[in-house]
Amino acid sequence: MKEVAKLTISCPDRKGLVARISDFVFRNGGNFLHFDQHTDLEAGVFLARMEWEVEGFQIPRERIADCFQGIALECGMRFDLAFSDDVPRIAIFASRMPHCLLDLLLRRQAGEFKADIALIVSNHSDVAEIAERFGIPFRHYPITPENKTQQEAAEIEELKANGIELIVLARYMQILSEAFVASFPNRIINIHHSFLPAFIGAQPYHQAFERGVKLIGATGHYVTSELDNGPIIEQEIIRVGHRDSVEDLIRKGRDLEKVVLARAVRLHLMHKVLTYGNKTVVFD
Amino acid sequence: MKEVAKLTISCPDRKGLVARISDFVFRNGGNFLHFDQHTDLEAGVFLARMEWEVEGFQIPRERIADCFQGIALECGMRFDLAFSDDVPRIAIFASRMPHCLLDLLLRRQAGEFKADIALIVSNHSDVAEIAERFGIPFRHYPITPENKTQQEAAEIEELKANGIELIVLARYMQILSEAFVASFPNRIINIHHSFLPAFIGAQPYHQAFERGVKLIGATGHYVTSELDNGPIIEQEIIRVGHRDSVEDLIRKGRDLEKVVLARAVRLHLMHKVLTYGNKTVVFD
Amino acid sequence: MKEVAKLTISCPDRKGLVARISDFVFRNGGNFLHFDQHTDLEAGVFLARMEWEVEGFQIPRERIADCFQGIALECGMRFDLAFSDDVPRIAIFASRMPHCLLDLLLRRQAGEFKADIALIVSNHSDVAEIAERFGIPFRHYPITPENKTQQEAAEIEELKANGIELIVLARYMQILSEAFVASFPNRIINIHHSFLPAFIGAQPYHQAFERGVKLIGATGHYVTSELDNGPIIEQEIIRVGHRDSVEDLIRKGRDLEKVVLARAVRLHLMHKVLTYGNKTVVFD
Amino acid sequence: MKEVAKLTISCPDRKGLVARISDFVFRNGGNFLHFDQHTDLEAGVFLARMEWEVEGFQIPRERIADCFQGIALECGMRFDLAFSDDVPRIAIFASRMPHCLLDLLLRRQAGEFKADIALIVSNHSDVAEIAERFGIPFRHYPITPENKTQQEAAEIEELKANGIELIVLARYMQILSEAFVASFPNRIINIHHSFLPAFIGAQPYHQAFERGVKLIGATGHYVTSELDNGPIIEQEIIRVGHRDSVEDLIRKGRDLEKVVLARAVRLHLMHKVLTYGNKTVVFD
Repeated sequence: MKEVAKLTISCPDRKGLVARISDFVFRNGGNFLHFDQHTDLEAGVFLARMEWEVEGFQIPRERIADCFQGIALECGMRFDLAFSDDVPRIAIFASRMPHCLLDLLLRRQAGEFKADIALIVSNHSDVAEIAERFGIPFRHYPITPENKTQQEAAEIEELKANGIELIVLARYMQILSEAFVASFPNRIINIHHSFLPAFIGAQPYHQAFERGVKLIGATGHYVTSELDNGPIIEQEIIRVGHRDSVEDLIRKGRDLEKVVLARAVRLHLMHKVLTYGNKTVVFD
Repeated sequence: MKEVAKLTISCPDRKGLVARISDFVFRNGGNFLHFDQHTDLEAGVFLARMEWEVEGFQIPRERIADCFQGIALECGMRFDLAFSDDVPRIAIFASRMPHCLLDLLLRRQAGEFKADIALIVSNHSDVAEIAERFGIPFRHYPITPENKTQQEAAEIEELKANGIELIVLARYMQILSEAFVASFPNRIINIHHSFLPAFIGAQPYHQAFERGVKLIGATGHYVTSELDNGPIIEQEIIRVGHRDSVEDLIRKGRDLEKVVLARAVRLHLMHKVLTYGNKTVVFD
Repeated sequence: MKEVAKLTISCPDRKGLVARISDFVFRNGGNFLHFDQHTDLEAGVFLARMEWEVEGFQIPRERIADCFQGIALECGMRFDLAFSDDVPRIAIFASRMPHCLLDLLLRRQAGEFKADIALIVSNHSDVAEIAERFGIPFRHYPITPENKTQQEAAEIEELKANGIELIVLARYMQILSEAFVASFPNRIINIHHSFLPAFIGAQPYHQAFERGVKLIGATGHYVTSELDNGPIIEQEIIRVGHRDSVEDLIRKGRDLEKVVLARAVRLHLMHKVLTYGNKTVVFD
Repeated sequence: MKEVAKLTISCPDRKGLVARISDFVFRNGGNFLHFDQHTDLEAGVFLARMEWEVEGFQIPRERIADCFQGIALECGMRFDLAFSDDVPRIAIFASRMPHCLLDLLLRRQAGEFKADIALIVSNHSDVAEIAERFGIPFRHYPITPENKTQQEAAEIEELKANGIELIVLARYMQILSEAFVASFPNRIINIHHSFLPAFIGAQPYHQAFERGVKLIGATGHYVTSELDNGPIIEQEIIRVGHRDSVEDLIRKGRDLEKVVLARAVRLHLMHKVLTYGNKTVVFD
């Protein structure tokens, strides 16, 4: 596999953006492997994602972002540059249920995504053993109403000290404070066990059972300060029926949760997700 | 196709219900083609649906219900007896959008379900032409806040006079009053254009677009006095993405609405849906 | 809705293709609304699709293709240029079953795709009435082993005389000859009632029933000289069970056939499908 | 959870079967929790599954089968009686890829199904470590064309000696001989990585990639002497597109394989699958 540069861009729409960007890459000897672009005409927003081979590119990789800065400033672009051999450091937060955590660890092991799982954080100690088995540092931060502010501050400090670029909430059953969320904007992915916006909040499977729905779902989304209301990355559903108890919903739902969270994390790590208002554009 | 009797039963659970029922059918020379049963242990409710061939059954079909009454009373059963050659009379309510109405008419024509579509009712006159083409009486009941009570009373009278057993709201954009709903308990099926309970009320596709969901849905349900909160019969979803405008959601959703409403109506007409609290049991 | 130009391109991969193309559009005052690109590295094939607003573009629309010819020749491109206000002429072929034909006619009426359905062709006369109701010329070409060559020649002549750009086989139950297919390369879309390559040939629902599958499907594909083996545009499935008879499979399958064929036709008409070997790239 | 008896029955259809069976249960003080029945009128086959609480049943559990034998013989029934607290002994066969094996072990650990995974068998030694971690005896049976008959004989002996009731082929990449299969009729479940009958045999993902399908699938089925042609228990699909390489198909397929195999195994262990010709009836 050759090394590939990945550039994502969002900015106000104007004429010639594709030409400007592609000209920059082409003039410097790059060749696009992928070029995806979307314009929201109503909102006047331009969004794009591209990949090109680094080999033969005339700007050294560490200077590409700087060189692109001129165009970016001129066009008011937010952009993000990454490389296929980057190994971002991520932290996984879990509580008592280990299935999503374990699933991510096994997928990482199977090479389904590229990341250094640098920390496993929990408000309980149940998953400490799993962390140990996979050789990953485990941090136990019990949370009470009294210590929450303090504990979160310590967590933020530890996450920053470890250079964590993405936090994955793998069925972490604590609501993060606004301050915590603000420290990692669009850098926290949560799995919610319902097809949002149905069944926001606690015990969505119980809610679904009570309502008698014929489908249950799971939603992978970025965490914002508003509960279960951040930009949605991925959703999936499965059929249920009258023979399914709440326990069956929970069991069936675990499969959804694992798959949906893994897809959302993978898409994020491949720089395929751009946020935009309270929505995502997923260039898959 | 031989004539078949269909019996659905719900009652408090107790020992020997299956034996009592099957003994009744067997002693009278019947042979089960289908026997479906479900017990909700928590709620203590027994639900069953069965079919047997009428030919050779020793009780004449018009007397079967009477003969079963004894067991039913003893066990506190609600039961419903129907026959495969019954042709129930139904009314379809529509407003301006004709796709669900047309779809039901074409499915009826293709023999997908058995019913006499005896009336098409609308608060607008747009679908009058469709009614005429299919040779079905059309009734125009314009609704205003002022005339609603009066118009609904007239509708109820006409529906009763026509022996209507099921009302299908095929994208009928008026909320029925509590009095109207009470006149046809579990006899009104609505199609709501979202995966309920998400996006209750008006313009669910616009709500879905705003929220940035990755799936949109449709829900076929019985109408109760609480808006979009009746027992759900069937749900289905389809994937959407950032390139889909509200118009695309509406277009994709039409396919869901047609299919989900048709399935719900067909299941009801085949006596495969039992209601139970605010839920359904679908013996499919 | 503003007028939009749609350009699709496929060619051997080489450096700078995106830059060349986007420069052409930008220099002439165009602004991309969409730009989708895919490179198959293994096969060394570059594929792209783009849209830009015609208004303000400095080359008159009738001369754009000529002006682009230089780049195309230089890079060995196959390209196709279309405009959002084009109304391509299409012919629908049907046999006895009307559901796909009717579905396309109703979708056309609802504005789901833009095309002039200029001819309805059949080897039977069953759908003549539908053609008449929608005011579309109907051509009856009965096919026997003896007259097939002659009839197809007459069909081709009539299709060419009518400027037909796309032929849709809406459950047309005749196999087209190699000569016929060669006259409309990648211009004939068929709906096959199975998830190809399972159940090629006749009576796929019966085959599916015999095999006891738990899913049935439908496939929209371009017709090539090899039966049911052309490039696949779209596929969809639905769940079936032991209670489903062959008739149930046929009934459930009709919904799939309608939806899948409509999607395939719409994608083709929007110039979102590029063929490539025996595959398609669908820029949706 | 109370102890429950599970009885599955298949036999030639005749009058009064439901009455006979339910009378047997009722007379002995049983109360049905579930009663599912299906008659294939064409084939003249009656199939049923029922559950009742053991507590209060007047026949001791070890004598129920004997007591039922009379009815069974009279009606030509094949029947199977099991209890909710049974813990059947199963063996999992794997080769090099561990994902299905690991998935089953984790689901077992999470209590998703009840079984004693008594042996892990492989033609390679890659998964020995996993077996060890979960504390399950591992048997390494390398297979060559020369030793296959001998090795299989040894395997059969070991499986029988261990009282194995179900063999699960969790991506086991060896074709079992007819003799082996005949030793465990309808007791071997395989996961095939395609939506059968498409892509029988080797490398189905490569075949799917070459064919350019838009959906890939997985099939859980009983193994018979005819390759990939045994009764299908469960199937599922996922959407793929032109950006998916063979590696992406393999990755996406792993999720299907895990889920479909787990569902098939669970349904079998809950005695919800009846075979019938080359088909299954799944009373779910």
